Amino acid sequence: MNLENLFKPKTMAVVGVSKKNPLSPGRIIFIKNFFEMEVNVYGIHPDGGEIEGIKLYTKLEELPEIPNLLVIAISAEETLGYVRNCAELNIPACIIIGGGFAEIGSEGIKRQEELERIAFENEIAVLGPNCIGVYSPPLLDTIFMPTERITRPPKGTVALISQSGGVLVDQFFHKFNEIKIGVSTAVSIGNRAVVDETMLLEYFSKYDKETSNIAFYLEGFKSNRSKEFLRLARESEDNVITYFGGLSEQGIKATKSHTASLSGNEKIISAVLKQNLIFQPRSELELLTHLKLLDILSHKRKPFDPNTIVNGQIAVLSISGGHGVLCVDLLKKYNLFGVEFSEKEKNEMKKLVNPVARNIASYDNPIDLTGSARDEDIENIIHILSKIERIECIILLILPYTPSISFQIGRRIADRVSLDKKPLVCFIPYIQKYSLIIESLELSNIPVFHSIEEAVQAVHALKILTRRKKLIKLK
Amino acid sequence: MNLENLFKPKTMAVVGVSKKNPLSPGRIIFIKNFFEMEVNVYGIHPDGGEIEGIKLYTKLEELPEIPNLLVIAISAEETLGYVRNCAELNIPACIIIGGGFAEIGSEGIKRQEELERIAFENEIAVLGPNCIGVYSPPLLDTIFMPTERITRPPKGTVALISQSGGVLVDQFFHKFNEIKIGVSTAVSIGNRAVVDETMLLEYFSKYDKETSNIAFYLEGFKSNRSKEFLRLARESEDNVITYFGGLSEQGIKATKSHTASLSGNEKIISAVLKQNLIFQPRSELELLTHLKLLDILSHKRKPFDPNTIVNGQIAVLSISGGHGVLCVDLLKKYNLFGVEFSEKEKNEMKKLVNPVARNIASYDNPIDLTGSARDEDIENIIHILSKIERIECIILLILPYTPSISFQIGRRIADRVSLDKKPLVCFIPYIQKYSLIIESLELSNIPVFHSIEEAVQAVHALKILTRRKKLIKLK
Repeated sequence: MNLENLFKPKTMAVVGVSKKNPLSPGRIIFIKNFFEMEVNVYGIHPDGGEIEGIKLYTKLEELPEIPNLLVIAISAEETLGYVRNCAELNIPACIIIGGGFAEIGSEGIKRQEELERIAFENEIAVLGPNCIGVYSPPLLDTIFMPTERITRPPKGTVALISQSGGVLVDQFFHKFNEIKIGVSTAVSIGNRAVVDETMLLEYFSKYDKETSNIAFYLEGFKSNRSKEFLRLARESEDNVITYFGGLSEQGIKATKSHTASLSGNEKIISAVLKQNLIFQPRSELELLTHLKLLDILSHKRKPFDPNTIVNGQIAVLSISGGHGVLCVDLLKKYNLFGVEFSEKEKNEMKKLVNPVARNIASYDNPIDLTGSARDEDIENIIHILSKIERIECIILLILPYTPSISFQIGRRIADRVSLDKKPLVCFIPYIQKYSLIIESLELSNIPVFHSIEEAVQAVHALKILTRRKKLIKLK
Repeated sequence: MNLENLFKPKTMAVVGVSKKNPLSPGRIIFIKNFFEMEVNVYGIHPDGGEIEGIKLYTKLEELPEIPNLLVIAISAEETLGYVRNCAELNIPACIIIGGGFAEIGSEGIKRQEELERIAFENEIAVLGPNCIGVYSPPLLDTIFMPTERITRPPKGTVALISQSGGVLVDQFFHKFNEIKIGVSTAVSIGNRAVVDETMLLEYFSKYDKETSNIAFYLEGFKSNRSKEFLRLARESEDNVITYFGGLSEQGIKATKSHTASLSGNEKIISAVLKQNLIFQPRSELELLTHLKLLDILSHKRKPFDPNTIVNGQIAVLSISGGHGVLCVDLLKKYNLFGVEFSEKEKNEMKKLVNPVARNIASYDNPIDLTGSARDEDIENIIHILSKIERIECIILLILPYTPSISFQIGRRIADRVSLDKKPLVCFIPYIQKYSLIIESLELSNIPVFHSIEEAVQAVHALKILTRRKKLIKLK
């Protein structure tokens, strides 16, 4: 089944453009695409006429051209008629917004089965029902929430596929926008009667060049499709991330009524995914950390080779003892280890630290250069740590609160790391006035996070990436 | 030992005001207090003279008045002389900023022992050494980081005591400012040679009326003081929160070099704290969630009685199925339970929901009113849930992205909850344009959080509070 028309249609039509209710989903979709997006869009209303000065057509046959995509935003009862229309007119793709299918029980299940029959027999790529559709910038946006109400993420490398529209616009869009993770295309699959997560995984990993990372929110796999999903995920050259909801006992009950999922042997599948190093974040924070890291690493220019964290041997460098302690406390949780330094290595560090900090600093791991540390101390210690081979990655905790750290610190670290090429992940508190420091690191594609735990999670992500790279090479 | 002069001095003197180095700690402390704070402050420099047009005095004896507090920001070697000076002149309190004591080993240990001897013999409340001192607005601020570099939290009910200055200004100050948690006084205890966490617990719970919540960051208790700490924490009418760093194997190693802590039987103490319902957050996020909740509940005006969550029986109400699923997934982790609704209760709900959403909504727990829900649906369901006695608390997940939710939703919920008096905790994504909704809830002191997990953590906090209240009543 060809999915391209769902994401790259030249022409799109919308059914369900209410003249009375400006907040109806069909009308919002029509209007936002007409005024904001690049696709050529037509509105259908049985009575014709116009809204906001834009002509409406009474039926599909009346349109000046046959659209590549039909968006259906009307009641469940009327929906199937329009899908049959697509078959007759050779419209190859269709998005069904409304609910009233398998998720409401017997009557709806029958309706959904009929929908599937028509779609598969006529090769129509049907997305939904019970979904918010597609966001494929700059071409189209079928999300029925007013654009000014949601927040849009920047353009980037992550394709998003979500079984929940709410999770898509909130956990993904809003948070992506906040921490600047870029999206290529976003898809809400709803009841996934026809187009499912497995077909989308194939599409994005094989046919979409803009995408190099594919993230899923799923409440279970579509039945009989998990093996194929697994095969594709294993073989994909893109990074695949699967975030699961509804795996708890209470959650399983809930998903049944939500998108009519057949939650089944997810725990087994989850174990197999893990074996194949398909990452499954355990929390929203971990999900976002991994995606942020992957999006940064998708840049061609890399300050270091990210695929070198085999065992997770870490050095922690800080100017606050407490931060160092909190950081090493977290290492074990993420399967990472603090290296030990030899007396020789410690002495080498000590010699290079400024005289005020020298004797009060601590050169064990975590290294605490104290509030008397200066820019060059941090730079020098990074240089020494970079030469120690058994250190696979440095976690640097920068606190620009102390007076001896200058606002050049970001640039100095960025240049040092780019020259020494030792993997390094930074923590800097996110405070507006420190954006100068944060940006100088980000411009060199050095991963920067705003909590200690995220920095540790990011190194864990690097470890998984390294292992997956090896696994793919072995094949 | 009287600690009041550390926090409420009328007059303060600073030793170590460098004329050459504008970034030296003593100079920063002197200048910021002179220009920004209300305490009467004098600067000491052996040569006298002036900086920035302000007169400096050559020695303590020369000051126009004997200060209540002396801040010492000079080398470890010279520090003791000034402490002896305090004894001679009857200066009752003193803050020692510099390091070079127990944390650097043998020579420093001796120095610290001598410091303790002088202080205890002469009843001088010595804070530190190796600390950043006291923030007691609007009177004084001895944090040696320039004020424009750190962020200051708003004024409020939480007293902060931290063994790490870095954690104090970052995890506490910066985050408190971000999520608006108010601070009464903040103290960095450093090596806690004399004034320790136990003395401060006593001071804040017995003598400071502004404080009703006391939060600690500790890397272990001072030796032989844990029993007394425990007794005070158990008996305190304030809420006591202890956040521990350095309890992991790697962390224990690190704390030894950091503040010369004698980390010992913390795990046992931690178990005893738990028995007495002294809350120990497991993560930074949980720490902040609890403090935010406690700060809100410190207001006299409360929309509901917070001390009624005995078993943790929860109803989750959402307009996004995915959000509901993610929320119930988290309940077990926080020792909470989703109630089940009877058919009668479900029918009662269904009858009140608008016709568009009625048949596609789900009335199991989590309740999913779908993207077609309107303000009055949410309000009506809250009213029904409030009448169901076995529900102890409602978690409401509001997503104002959908067009049928109005910007009055916050006010409507706030009024409903204040009338029905059922405990309710909200999740709303933190997006600037939704502050209108967020503020209408916050003005009624309804707890609002910006991730699902925080909302669940907050209910967990309510459960602990309820149990602690019972425990205290029993005594």
